Amino acid sequence: MKLVESVPNFSEGRRENIVREILSEAEKYSKVKILDWSMDFDHNRSVVTLVGEPEDIEHAVFDMTKKAVELIDLRDHKGEHPRMGAVDVIPFIPVMNTEMKECIEMSKRIGKRIGSELNIPVYLYEKSATSPERENLANIRKGEFEGFFDKIKDPKWAPDYGPNEVHPTAGVVAVGAREYLIAFNVNLGTTNIEIANKIARAVRHISGGFRYVKAIGVELKEKGMVQVSMNLTNYKKSPIFRVFETIKREAQRYGVPVINSEIIGMIPLKAAINTMMWYLQLDDFDENRIIENKILNTFFE
Amino acid sequence: MKLVESVPNFSEGRRENIVREILSEAEKYSKVKILDWSMDFDHNRSVVTLVGEPEDIEHAVFDMTKKAVELIDLRDHKGEHPRMGAVDVIPFIPVMNTEMKECIEMSKRIGKRIGSELNIPVYLYEKSATSPERENLANIRKGEFEGFFDKIKDPKWAPDYGPNEVHPTAGVVAVGAREYLIAFNVNLGTTNIEIANKIARAVRHISGGFRYVKAIGVELKEKGMVQVSMNLTNYKKSPIFRVFETIKREAQRYGVPVINSEIIGMIPLKAAINTMMWYLQLDDFDENRIIENKILNTFFE
Repeated sequence: MKLVESVPNFSEGRRENIVREILSEAEKYSKVKILDWSMDFDHNRSVVTLVGEPEDIEHAVFDMTKKAVELIDLRDHKGEHPRMGAVDVIPFIPVMNTEMKECIEMSKRIGKRIGSELNIPVYLYEKSATSPERENLANIRKGEFEGFFDKIKDPKWAPDYGPNEVHPTAGVVAVGAREYLIAFNVNLGTTNIEIANKIARAVRHISGGFRYVKAIGVELKEKGMVQVSMNLTNYKKSPIFRVFETIKREAQRYGVPVINSEIIGMIPLKAAINTMMWYLQLDDFDENRIIENKILNTFFE
Repeated sequence: MKLVESVPNFSEGRRENIVREILSEAEKYSKVKILDWSMDFDHNRSVVTLVGEPEDIEHAVFDMTKKAVELIDLRDHKGEHPRMGAVDVIPFIPVMNTEMKECIEMSKRIGKRIGSELNIPVYLYEKSATSPERENLANIRKGEFEGFFDKIKDPKWAPDYGPNEVHPTAGVVAVGAREYLIAFNVNLGTTNIEIANKIARAVRHISGGFRYVKAIGVELKEKGMVQVSMNLTNYKKSPIFRVFETIKREAQRYGVPVINSEIIGMIPLKAAINTMMWYLQLDDFDENRIIENKILNTFFE
């Protein structure tokens, strides 16, 4: 069985009935699972997390997009979060037995359909980007909905699919593929924030650390601890265990113990199995050796 | 969702059509998954591994038992493996969200039905045993089918359920509950079998080690290594990570490295998650934070 996640962001975070109508488009697919959805009033935005087989996810997300375009009018939209479309961004993320390449293909197929069937300009971003300046979503979104009526006239910002004209009510949309992001925090037995900052600098990419790690030091005043707070943007290439072991070693340098750590939200089974395999020195093991996963596979046979 | 495993053993390992007829009784239950089945000609025995929700498993195993009793005649049965029944032994094993207590209850309910509906004497064993001498299956099976016609007359060996008389063609059966067994081997960078033997003695229960560990030293001549070969009979109370770390420390004592390790067959998700949690020092995590497991649960809602 193959599993892909998608986390479409919709520019509606106040009227629950509208968000529910969009969700119901996904619920029509019996094999698509809505893992999570949330509305934010201040951002006026909702975020939905869906998981399922690639084809089902692709169809469900297209149907949700179509419904959102019917129901959301960006001309009336105000909120704190920057946005450029009724459907603002659609990422596809490989979860199980799926290659990044397949998620890129999914993003291109759905992008093409959104362009031609819904008349919305589509920008491919991250792994799907067609030029380096389109990799970063913030770059694409700069100027937001209101600014895009001008921005789109710049040949540098011609859309990858769809018309060369902003959709009057739905704006434009970014579609792309990216790796699963794991939020991982390590708590240190000290109140000295400088030590957390130093360790964060040691492990994060920007200052010479692991390529797929973003990290900052954070004070946890109530707990009397400091934290190395991280996003692992590619757990296959900069894995949890290696980052954790490096943090432990760096903390030793300062005579500081690691008290505990936290994984925020959900993770793919593979991330847990890779961690077990490394620590137990297992050379020959994989997710199919987990009873529950074997059973899950039978439902997708 | 709750998951229970059962591994019934049938005294037929030569005629595949008979084994398949027994299997087809389980296949009638759409939510019961046959993880594995194997026939052994020399043992003249087959072993089936089923997983599913407790109620489904209980019904599937009863139907398989009924079919096996119809098709197998122990009077004709010859094989190397000791046996006392057409269905020789039925263990129930908690896999997910299930307590041992529930598996004991399952074994008693199905034992009662086998006794009254199929007229077969039933002995409860392991965690279900009604006296200490019935905990060990080998104790119950002593004398085998042929010997049971006398053994059953001894008041000490009166069955827990069913008639006080051996079934003429199906013999008697042992039914019980036990923990999931993990076969775990650690390979050492030495050819000195004495070191593997010493470490095996250090970790195994019988010689003072962990309560739920059985261990022996084994020579791997082709690989130029020796192995500590183990059965972990309760991975919750004598967990893989603690046994592994103890072996690594003992090996250091002899200046010997741990080269790698092996888990044989399948394991419950919980065993992998507990291992990850211990090594990463996660205090707050569980199986429901694994995406694949969350999806599996939706199929059992």
